[in-house]
Amino acid sequence: MTEHRTRVDVGIVGGGPAGLMTALLLKRRGISAAVIETRTKDTIHHTQRAGILEAATVNMLVDAEVGSRVLTAGHEHEGTVLSFDGEAHRIDFQALVGRSVWLYPQNEVFFDLANAWEREGGEIHWAVTDTQVHDVETAAPRISFTDAAGQERGIEADLIVGTDGSRSMCRKLIPEQVRTDHFISYPFAWFGILCEAPPTAPELIYANSELGFALISQRNETVQRMYFQCDPDTDPQSWSEDAIFDHIQAVLGHEGGVQLKRGPIIEKTVLPFRSYVCDPLSHGRLALAGDAGHTVPPTGAKGLNLAFADVRALVPCVEEFIAELRAGRAETGSGAPGSGAPGSGAPGSGAPGSGAPGSGAPGSGAPGSGESVSVIETPAALRRYSRTALDRVWKAQNFSYWATNLLHRHPEENPFTHRRRRGEFDAITGSVHGQAYFADSYTGWSD
Amino acid sequence: MTEHRTRVDVGIVGGGPAGLMTALLLKRRGISAAVIETRTKDTIHHTQRAGILEAATVNMLVDAEVGSRVLTAGHEHEGTVLSFDGEAHRIDFQALVGRSVWLYPQNEVFFDLANAWEREGGEIHWAVTDTQVHDVETAAPRISFTDAAGQERGIEADLIVGTDGSRSMCRKLIPEQVRTDHFISYPFAWFGILCEAPPTAPELIYANSELGFALISQRNETVQRMYFQCDPDTDPQSWSEDAIFDHIQAVLGHEGGVQLKRGPIIEKTVLPFRSYVCDPLSHGRLALAGDAGHTVPPTGAKGLNLAFADVRALVPCVEEFIAELRAGRAETGSGAPGSGAPGSGAPGSGAPGSGAPGSGAPGSGAPGSGESVSVIETPAALRRYSRTALDRVWKAQNFSYWATNLLHRHPEENPFTHRRRRGEFDAITGSVHGQAYFADSYTGWSD
Repeated sequence: MTEHRTRVDVGIVGGGPAGLMTALLLKRRGISAAVIETRTKDTIHHTQRAGILEAATVNMLVDAEVGSRVLTAGHEHEGTVLSFDGEAHRIDFQALVGRSVWLYPQNEVFFDLANAWEREGGEIHWAVTDTQVHDVETAAPRISFTDAAGQERGIEADLIVGTDGSRSMCRKLIPEQVRTDHFISYPFAWFGILCEAPPTAPELIYANSELGFALISQRNETVQRMYFQCDPDTDPQSWSEDAIFDHIQAVLGHEGGVQLKRGPIIEKTVLPFRSYVCDPLSHGRLALAGDAGHTVPPTGAKGLNLAFADVRALVPCVEEFIAELRAGRAETGSGAPGSGAPGSGAPGSGAPGSGAPGSGAPGSGAPGSGESVSVIETPAALRRYSRTALDRVWKAQNFSYWATNLLHRHPEENPFTHRRRRGEFDAITGSVHGQAYFADSYTGWSD
Repeated sequence: MTEHRTRVDVGIVGGGPAGLMTALLLKRRGISAAVIETRTKDTIHHTQRAGILEAATVNMLVDAEVGSRVLTAGHEHEGTVLSFDGEAHRIDFQALVGRSVWLYPQNEVFFDLANAWEREGGEIHWAVTDTQVHDVETAAPRISFTDAAGQERGIEADLIVGTDGSRSMCRKLIPEQVRTDHFISYPFAWFGILCEAPPTAPELIYANSELGFALISQRNETVQRMYFQCDPDTDPQSWSEDAIFDHIQAVLGHEGGVQLKRGPIIEKTVLPFRSYVCDPLSHGRLALAGDAGHTVPPTGAKGLNLAFADVRALVPCVEEFIAELRAGRAETGSGAPGSGAPGSGAPGSGAPGSGAPGSGAPGSGAPGSGESVSVIETPAALRRYSRTALDRVWKAQNFSYWATNLLHRHPEENPFTHRRRRGEFDAITGSVHGQAYFADSYTGWSD
């Protein structure tokens, strides 16, 4: 069986929101891309995922011309409610920082992006198998895979973008000697439910009490999403409907507080969570974006928004890199795809900000070793992408960590810690400056 | 030898700033007080203590008419500098929240207060021994002690205020069954020096790097105070002058950063630190204020300011309590000091907000037990003092804990944590909302 080969500027591994948004925005700038994805389009579309979108994320969807469903089917939230020991305070995002967030599920974001990409004739392969990424440390990286019809295929590109999620295989292509895996785990998880009930409240309620954390969210007029803190080993079937609602109500408080709207529970899942950052996010002709490069705990809803922030940082850097490559090719007359021409490494090493020109592989951590001679230098524009994206990643990691610790009860918590967290809650809710700090972080800072 | 007895409205154990400020403000409201202190006035005055005073603290000194030395000899700081990995950002308190702080040593605050109290003929006994506090669970509490001349003395009062510092003996009079000791320790300490050198910078610099924390402070034109993070077991003599300055300079960074002004070191001390809160702060006829009730780590300079915030909350509550007592005495005609009259417990139990009227000792945790019958109820005004003061104490505890963790390196720190702290630093310094949140907390919130 012959391998079918495609030649594009950028090969994208992973057809979730980050990969599709990258593909669409590159196309708007005249850069061709092809996308592969191991799951079917239907599977991703029908995997229920929560979604709180920052204004910047919504703007990207609008700018990428994927349709206005986010604006018509999504719900603008101008604030959120923080509740501690049954005492609730609304944080008014609009009044404080002039930005809203939008409730719109991630799987619908995906669906809009996939439809737009397909409608425009973008190359995408769903349900692929045997994916391998080759030669990212050379000027001629490529992807090989078997498509849904059983056909072996290849994608040749100048750059591979890995948007293949938290279990990323692309990430592993950054050698361990140049990669730092920053990681912490948490001693709890979220128990998530979908239930057939009308909304309990018009905006999200993040609640904490001595029983731990709970989150009241929304889905649509008839189905609601709620979460509460649980042990990571919890069997979802071990909790009855009544026990679940009684527990969440107890976290919200009984007197004068929010009364939960109850209904048949149609889905129960336990979501363990962790904080992870891969540093750097680029190596040779590979760049990572979204969950492939970092995962955050769900508190504060930064996951998808951070993936889109990566894409915002990545696309102009890719554009610059591709432009330099084309200019180099025009100069040398070498236009052959996949040629690995000697000139291909030059734009990076000659660009401003390039770490140690002529040293071989500044990013590799093995300068002067015999092995590094064959490793292509990471282009300056892609190194800059990594630095720019990581600055925001760490702000978001901090916010997610901080919000998680503020709102969850640690299993072995010292009584000092619970009271201190209450003091922190009062500092945030009790002054306009505390509220604005929270609102600014939650709605995604001003870029 | 006969015991000499004094009768006052309020007996104060501890002649530091909290005790003296309480005595002065009570006198302004027509309430008599007497103060005892185990140290000499000279010892306290000459024990070097740092001092960053919130505007509210300065206002109290001015309002208490202790003289204007704080305004003439103190230095107004309209901002402070935060430095992380050699990158410095100024936080402009005045521009952000319209408040400054003042650099004025705590031992000078003490000296001004002590002089004012003595000048006005207030009763104070320095260098006392054999201090005992009696019968705080009755309507006739008293203090006994031996004065500096060897005379045995007693102070009879309606209320005892314990301002006897972090090793408070008054605190131990709140029985363990009603008292919660909230406590955490830290795996590091501060190495503090005084050196003969001009100021390195006009404002404080709080710095962090992979080497840990350092603080550049000021004292006067010729003597400076600096600190750096060390192991709690550090022997101050094990660090040479050069090693100390080289280390602090390394934390500040070498390139383009602040250049330390060096000079002979005239004092080296290691300050271990801890977070502690006593809950409640009142019991029977006893109220605690300042370090007797809570200690904070020094990061963020909340100690003295929190003590004065206690006093601000305490004085009107004491005034209310004494007024009710006087009204009760006028009604019953019982004016006898130390009478333990049945009416004395009434103002508390009849006041609004009184927990469980008629239940004996609501604060004692032993309702219905035979023993509790003899325990006087904590007056409502003093219970309210405890709640009001603790709300602020926990905000300040959180700020001190948060600033400590942001700016110190934990000995067993995960690399994730250092980078996350950097993300938090960027979130604080990189937006006006983050800066304002810090400035509002540092300068003492708006009351």
